[in-house]
Amino acid sequence: MAVDIYRIILLLKSSSVFSQVSTDDLRQVALAMEEERYLVGEHIFDQGQFGDHMYVLQAGRVGISLRTGNRSECLAELGAGECFGEMNLLDDLPRSATAYALEDVIVFALEKQRLRQLILRCPELSLGIMRSLSLRLRDANLRNA
Amino acid sequence: MAVDIYRIILLLKSSSVFSQVSTDDLRQVALAMEEERYLVGEHIFDQGQFGDHMYVLQAGRVGISLRTGNRSECLAELGAGECFGEMNLLDDLPRSATAYALEDVIVFALEKQRLRQLILRCPELSLGIMRSLSLRLRDANLRNA
Repeated sequence: MAVDIYRIILLLKSSSVFSQVSTDDLRQVALAMEEERYLVGEHIFDQGQFGDHMYVLQAGRVGISLRTGNRSECLAELGAGECFGEMNLLDDLPRSATAYALEDVIVFALEKQRLRQLILRCPELSLGIMRSLSLRLRDANLRNA
Repeated sequence: MAVDIYRIILLLKSSSVFSQVSTDDLRQVALAMEEERYLVGEHIFDQGQFGDHMYVLQAGRVGISLRTGNRSECLAELGAGECFGEMNLLDDLPRSATAYALEDVIVFALEKQRLRQLILRCPELSLGIMRSLSLRLRDANLRNA
């Protein structure tokens, strides 16, 4: 169990969202996370659903796709250390996109209420999430231009 | 002076970023803000600059435009209560867009280090900023689709 917590803390340290969080606080985040596995092709969540978890990708690759009408477009391909699924935990709207396994994947899942508690207890986590959202918003605006 | 603080607190309460922040904490935010005025056509900040303030719009309308190559595109028109200029305070990159006065405007400006101090002291403010960034990211992704 100790090895697992250490492995999760190392993963979180490599993630842009969690990299500025102190190791003590990361230990709390790690203790609140649950490992989940998905086979290639499986959906982790679907656009339009109300979700209650955010995810940090430990192994494998995840695709994020957006469906509009009959068209589906790949927005991003994520690798180890990247976070996804946090948006609807922050704005209380349904999932804005679908996440699916491009390979067999292992993720660490963090439940919505736990995330909110951690944000309230650990402001450095907020700065990490804000920085990550801000960078993604820059990318999206540039793709629009 | 008391009237001014009260006016800023009311404005912040109407803003999606600050609406969940307690009145006591909003008082701290309001005390840290400075009023600035811009005439129609004046730039509040320019894309590519490093900025050190975020803004809450008190009166008038502000345009946000993105320049790519020789082309300039209007990304958004903002009205009273809306916030802008917070992105580069969070991700330490240059301004991602230009903000300019579509009419004579009055804004309240909050300095970067003050914003960070307030985020660290007041986690509800973080949740407000994250919700706002998340909603803007949804909009940008949908415009891309």
